[in-house]
Amino acid sequence: MSKHAKTIQIAILGASGYTGAELLRILVHHPRAAIVALTADRRAGQAIESVFPHLRGLGLPQLVRIEDVDFEAIDVVFCCLPHGATQETVAALPEHLKIIDLSADFRIADPATYTEWYGKPHQAETLQKEAVYGLTELAREAIAKARLIACPGCYPTSALLPLVPLLEAGLILAEDIVIDSKSGVTGAGRAPKEEGLYAEVAEGIHAYGVGQHRHAPEIEQGLSRAANVDVTVSFTPHLVPMNRGILSTIYVRLAKNAGADGLRAALAARYEKETFVQIVPDGVLPATRHVRGSNVCRIGVFPDRQPGRAILVSTLDNLVKGASGQAVQNFNLLAGILESTGLEQAPIFP
Amino acid sequence: MSKHAKTIQIAILGASGYTGAELLRILVHHPRAAIVALTADRRAGQAIESVFPHLRGLGLPQLVRIEDVDFEAIDVVFCCLPHGATQETVAALPEHLKIIDLSADFRIADPATYTEWYGKPHQAETLQKEAVYGLTELAREAIAKARLIACPGCYPTSALLPLVPLLEAGLILAEDIVIDSKSGVTGAGRAPKEEGLYAEVAEGIHAYGVGQHRHAPEIEQGLSRAANVDVTVSFTPHLVPMNRGILSTIYVRLAKNAGADGLRAALAARYEKETFVQIVPDGVLPATRHVRGSNVCRIGVFPDRQPGRAILVSTLDNLVKGASGQAVQNFNLLAGILESTGLEQAPIFP
Amino acid sequence: MSKHAKTIQIAILGASGYTGAELLRILVHHPRAAIVALTADRRAGQAIESVFPHLRGLGLPQLVRIEDVDFEAIDVVFCCLPHGATQETVAALPEHLKIIDLSADFRIADPATYTEWYGKPHQAETLQKEAVYGLTELAREAIAKARLIACPGCYPTSALLPLVPLLEAGLILAEDIVIDSKSGVTGAGRAPKEEGLYAEVAEGIHAYGVGQHRHAPEIEQGLSRAANVDVTVSFTPHLVPMNRGILSTIYVRLAKNAGADGLRAALAARYEKETFVQIVPDGVLPATRHVRGSNVCRIGVFPDRQPGRAILVSTLDNLVKGASGQAVQNFNLLAGILESTGLEQAPIFP
Amino acid sequence: MSKHAKTIQIAILGASGYTGAELLRILVHHPRAAIVALTADRRAGQAIESVFPHLRGLGLPQLVRIEDVDFEAIDVVFCCLPHGATQETVAALPEHLKIIDLSADFRIADPATYTEWYGKPHQAETLQKEAVYGLTELAREAIAKARLIACPGCYPTSALLPLVPLLEAGLILAEDIVIDSKSGVTGAGRAPKEEGLYAEVAEGIHAYGVGQHRHAPEIEQGLSRAANVDVTVSFTPHLVPMNRGILSTIYVRLAKNAGADGLRAALAARYEKETFVQIVPDGVLPATRHVRGSNVCRIGVFPDRQPGRAILVSTLDNLVKGASGQAVQNFNLLAGILESTGLEQAPIFP
Repeated sequence: MSKHAKTIQIAILGASGYTGAELLRILVHHPRAAIVALTADRRAGQAIESVFPHLRGLGLPQLVRIEDVDFEAIDVVFCCLPHGATQETVAALPEHLKIIDLSADFRIADPATYTEWYGKPHQAETLQKEAVYGLTELAREAIAKARLIACPGCYPTSALLPLVPLLEAGLILAEDIVIDSKSGVTGAGRAPKEEGLYAEVAEGIHAYGVGQHRHAPEIEQGLSRAANVDVTVSFTPHLVPMNRGILSTIYVRLAKNAGADGLRAALAARYEKETFVQIVPDGVLPATRHVRGSNVCRIGVFPDRQPGRAILVSTLDNLVKGASGQAVQNFNLLAGILESTGLEQAPIFP
Repeated sequence: MSKHAKTIQIAILGASGYTGAELLRILVHHPRAAIVALTADRRAGQAIESVFPHLRGLGLPQLVRIEDVDFEAIDVVFCCLPHGATQETVAALPEHLKIIDLSADFRIADPATYTEWYGKPHQAETLQKEAVYGLTELAREAIAKARLIACPGCYPTSALLPLVPLLEAGLILAEDIVIDSKSGVTGAGRAPKEEGLYAEVAEGIHAYGVGQHRHAPEIEQGLSRAANVDVTVSFTPHLVPMNRGILSTIYVRLAKNAGADGLRAALAARYEKETFVQIVPDGVLPATRHVRGSNVCRIGVFPDRQPGRAILVSTLDNLVKGASGQAVQNFNLLAGILESTGLEQAPIFP
Repeated sequence: MSKHAKTIQIAILGASGYTGAELLRILVHHPRAAIVALTADRRAGQAIESVFPHLRGLGLPQLVRIEDVDFEAIDVVFCCLPHGATQETVAALPEHLKIIDLSADFRIADPATYTEWYGKPHQAETLQKEAVYGLTELAREAIAKARLIACPGCYPTSALLPLVPLLEAGLILAEDIVIDSKSGVTGAGRAPKEEGLYAEVAEGIHAYGVGQHRHAPEIEQGLSRAANVDVTVSFTPHLVPMNRGILSTIYVRLAKNAGADGLRAALAARYEKETFVQIVPDGVLPATRHVRGSNVCRIGVFPDRQPGRAILVSTLDNLVKGASGQAVQNFNLLAGILESTGLEQAPIFP
Repeated sequence: MSKHAKTIQIAILGASGYTGAELLRILVHHPRAAIVALTADRRAGQAIESVFPHLRGLGLPQLVRIEDVDFEAIDVVFCCLPHGATQETVAALPEHLKIIDLSADFRIADPATYTEWYGKPHQAETLQKEAVYGLTELAREAIAKARLIACPGCYPTSALLPLVPLLEAGLILAEDIVIDSKSGVTGAGRAPKEEGLYAEVAEGIHAYGVGQHRHAPEIEQGLSRAANVDVTVSFTPHLVPMNRGILSTIYVRLAKNAGADGLRAALAARYEKETFVQIVPDGVLPATRHVRGSNVCRIGVFPDRQPGRAILVSTLDNLVKGASGQAVQNFNLLAGILESTGLEQAPIFP
C-alpha cells in the first residue's frame, strides 16, 4: 500500500453489527478511505439503510456476501465477524490484503491459552503468531508494519492503557489487581437475545461472567508482558443501561514510595503527546458520557483510604476507542497518514 | 464579511447551556470559524471543561462576562441566552456584528402576538421587525443577507418543514391540523429544576403545556404565511426520557383528490436537492435515534384510516437541526460558504 | 364457583411472558386465589425463578406443559398465550373452567373484522360470540356472569375509558377522533427481536403500525357501540424507552355547547365511585410514572386552542390496568369478592 | 407502646423527599400503622399529591410544618430530614416518642469519627450514644427495645449484610476488602442540582466521592465490630442511570482453607430463616432489577481467578431495604408485630 495513493480501497466484512455501523460512521467521511464493499451474509442484497436506517443517504454500497467481493480491488479489510468464525475467513483472504480484525480471534498469542478459553484449538495458528495486538499507543511501530492487526477488546483497552505504563515503571505491584468494569449494552452485539431486550436491561445493573470472562486472559496477557511476570487479575464486568461506554475502576497496590500523585504524573508524562489518551487532573472524575462518540480514553487517579493502594478510573466509548475508532487509528498507522485522520469528532454530550 | 476571509471570528454568548455546548461541538472543527470568545456570566473565569467536561482538551477559550468581550475582533455572534434576556443584550451589540440568535426573542414578528405569549412588550421592536426567521430551507435568500437571524424553535422546525410546502401547494387544508410532538429533555435546558431530575423523567412520559406552549404561535405564524389565512393548530408537546430528539406526529386533512402518496411525492420533489431534509420512502418509519447528532430532518408520510386524512411523521435532533446545527447552517449561508460545512457528521447510532 | 369457597384454584397458561409475570406478582399475595399450575411449553420443567429471577422464594409451582395440568383441580384459568395460538387452546379447555384471556383472540366480536385484521378466520367462533369484552368499569354485570372474558388491549383500555362515556353522553362527536398513543416496551412482549434490544429502543422514539395497528378496530368497536354509529379513528402508537406505561393523547371535536370543563365534569361524575379511574382536576398533567405498578387509569381534560375541540390525556400501566391488573379485577368480579382485592398497591415512584 | 393497640399513630417528618414517599407507599396499607401527620416545611399547607402526584387519592393528610404537629397524638416518628438538620430536631422531640431516623445523623457512634467526616461536632451527643444502629437482621434485640433507631445507609446495608457474618465466622480476612458499589439516582435525593438532571445522568456512568464517601466510615464501623480489629476498606460508589437499586461487588481475601462455596454455605446458614435476605445458588447472578420495589437483599458468592480470593455480589433496592423498607421492618420490631408486616410486596419487574 503506497503512501501516495489518493484513496485506500476498503472492505468491511460483517457490516451489519454495531462495530460495522460504527466503522461506517467514522469512515464515510475519512479523506483517504473509499468504502467499496460491505458484507453481511444474511442481509446480502439489501441496502445498508434497511439494516441501519441512520446510514441512509450516505452513498454506501449495498450489502453482499463475502464470496461476491472482488478482493483484487481492495487494499484493506476491516473484519467485524463473530468470534470463532473469523479465523477461517481471514485465513482464506488473498495475501495482498492488510487485515484489521475486530474480533477476539487473534488477540490471544498463546495457543494453549486460546484453546482453554475459547474451547477448541485455533484454526489458523500461523496467522495467530503473526498477528500484532493493536493497542495503538503501546504498539505503534509493530502495527504500522503488520499485515494482520488484532484490535484489542473494549475492556482490555480500558484496563491496559492505565496499567501497562505503571507496571513497566514499577510504580504498582503485579499482585492483587482488581478490575471492576461497567459496560454499555452495545458490547454484547446486535443478535436478538432475551437478556438483551430493553426491559431486561433498563433500570438495573448486574454483574456477569464473574471470574470467567474471556477478556480476563487478554488483560493478563498484556499485564504479564508489562510486568515480566505472570499476572492474574480479579476482573468483573457489569452491564449498565446505556448504549455506549466502559468505565473501569481499578484497585492497585502501590510499590514502595509510590502514591496516587506519582501515578498520575507518570501516566501524564507517558501520554503527554497522545491525542486520544487524557489523564485528568487531581479531583476530576472521568465519566463515560464525556467521551461518548469520541476516540478518547480518559483516566483519573485517586488515593485510596487503604494505605499502600490507589484507585484508577478509566473511561472510553466501547464502540470507538474500544473497537472501531481504534481500528481506524490503526488503519491510519498502516496507511502512513496522520493517526487522528477521521477521528477528530468531539464527544457528543448529552 | 468577505467571502475571501480565511476565518470568521465568532463569539458565543451563553456558552454554558446545552445549545452552547452543541455549537462548540460543531464549530470546534469548522474550517472557516475561529471561536474567540465564550461568555457565561455566572461561570466567568472558568475553563470550559469545568462546565462541560466533554470539551476538555479542545483548545477553547475561557469563559468570560459579556462586558469583557472585545467585539471589535468579532465578526459573528451566536446568542444562546435565555428568552427575555436576549433582546436587550442583542440591542446593545455593535452594528458591525452579524447575530445568529437561538432564543425565542426574535421569532415572533407580530408585536401583539409577542406580548400576548411572552407577557410583556418586546424591548427591541426595531430589531424584531428586521429579524429574519431562520428556517434555512425555506428562507435561504433572506438569511444570507440578514444581520439578525432568529433561529426557529425545535418544535416549529419539526412541524414547518413538512407542513409549509404542503400548504403552499394546496395539498392539505389549513384547518384541523393536529401536531402531537415528543421531545427529549435537553429542550428544557440545563437549569436545575426538580422536574428535570433523572428520577422525575426516566421511565415515564407526560404531556406539558397542553394548549399553551409558546411554540404554538410560532408554528401558526409559519403556517399562516404559507396558507395565506390565519391558521390555528392543536399542538401538544410531551417529554420523553431521552437526551436528544423530537418526533412530531402530524394529522392533516387532505385537499380534494390528494392522498398520502401525493403528499410524499410533493415533499420529495420540494426537498430533492436538500442535504438536510430527507423524505423516506413509503413504509419507512422515521425514528429520532436515526438522526441523532446529525443536522438531518427526516419525514415520512402515511395514509390515515380516516378517509380524507393523512399522517406525517417528522424527526430531528433538537440540539442540531432544532437549534445549533441549523444555526451553523445559517452561519454558512451568511458567510457565503458551502451550506453543509462543519455539518457533515453522520448520525450516531446507537 | 361458590362465593363461600375459601380459595379459588387458578392456573396461568403462558406464564413465562411479561403479563404472566405480572399476574404472579399480583396474585401471589391475593387472599382468595391459590396458584396451582403454571404452564410454559418451552420452559416446562423449570422453576419459575429460572425464567423470572424476581419471583424466587415465593413458593410458586414449577412450570409445566399445558397437557400436564390437571384441570379438574382448577377453577379459573388465566390465559397469557400468544395471539392466534389462544383460540384453539381455549376451545379445548373443560367446560367447568372460567377463562380470563389476556390475548387478542376474543376481543373482536365481528367475525369479518377479525378475519380482516388477523389474516384468517377465527377457529372458535362460538366462543368468540360468547366472550365478554372485559373493560371492567363499563361491563361489570356481564363480566360477573361470563364464562370467557376477553381482557381489552392496553391501548384500547386507555382510549375507551375516557371516550366511551363522552360519546354516550353526546358531549363529543364521533368524527375526527385522533388517538396518539405512547407505550413502554413491555407491550411488545418478551420474545427476542432485534428491534426490541436495549440499543434499538433507548434514547429515541418512533411511531409504528401507523394506520395499521390491530388495536384500531378494537378501539373502533368500543366507540361504535357507544356512539351507535360506525366510528373510524386516527390511531398512531409510538414506542417510548420505558418499561411500563401508556399515555394516550386524544383530540376530539366537541358537541355544540360542550367544553373541556364540561367533559371533565361528566367523566368525574361517571367515575366518581370507581377505585381505579381517576379524573384529575383542571391543570393537573397525568404522567405514566405516577400510575406505575398500580391498577389506576388517570385521565385529564384540557381545552384545545382550536375552537370546538378538546384534548384528553389518559395514562395507565400497560401491564396492570392494561393487562394483568384488569384481569385480576375481572377475576374478583367473577369470584364475587371485593373488586379491588389484591390490587391495592400504591403506585411505585420513582 | 402496647402490643395490643389496634393501630400505632405515626408521623413522618420530611415527607417530601424520596424516602418519605417510599415510606408512604409502604405504610399506606400497613394494617397497624395510621399515618396522622406529614411535615415538609417548604411545602406546608399543600396536599401530598401536589408534591407526589402518584400518592393522589390515598386519603393521606396534608403537609404541615413540624411545629404544627400535635406530637401528643403520635406514637412513632419516622424522620426523613436532611443530614445535619436531623439531630437538633430529634433532640427536641417529646420523650414519649419512638424515633426511627433515616438520616445519617445517628449512625456513627464515635464522636471523633462523626466530627471528622461531618465537619463539626455532633449537636446531640447523648442521643448519639443511645441510638441503636438499625441493620435489622444483625441487631434485632436491641432494635426492639430502642427509643432511637438509626437506620443504616443504603451502601452500608449492601456491604454489611454479606460481610459481617463472614468476618464473624473468620472466613475472610479483615484486610484488603474492596467494595465497588453502583447506585441508582434516588440515593442522591430530590433537591434540584445540575448534576442530577436527566441529561447529566442518562446514558453514562461515573464514580464519585472516590476514597471520600461518608458511607465508608459507617461501613468500617460495622466491619470493625464484626472483626474485632480496626478495618479500613476501599470503597468507590458509582452513579448508574436507573431510579432504584444498589449493587455492590465486593472483593475479599479468604481465610486459610476457605473457599467461595464455604462462604456461600455460611451465609445461607446464617440467613436461612430470614424473609428479606436471600443467598442465591452457585451461578445465579443477582441483579438490582430483580429486587426492585421489595425489601429483599439478594447476595451471590463467586470464586475469584486470583487464588485465595472470592467475590461477593450484593443487591437491594436503595429506597426499600436500603432506607424506608428497613425502617418499616424496624418499626414492626418496635411494635412487636410480625416483622414482614406491610413489606410482603413482590419485586416489580420489569
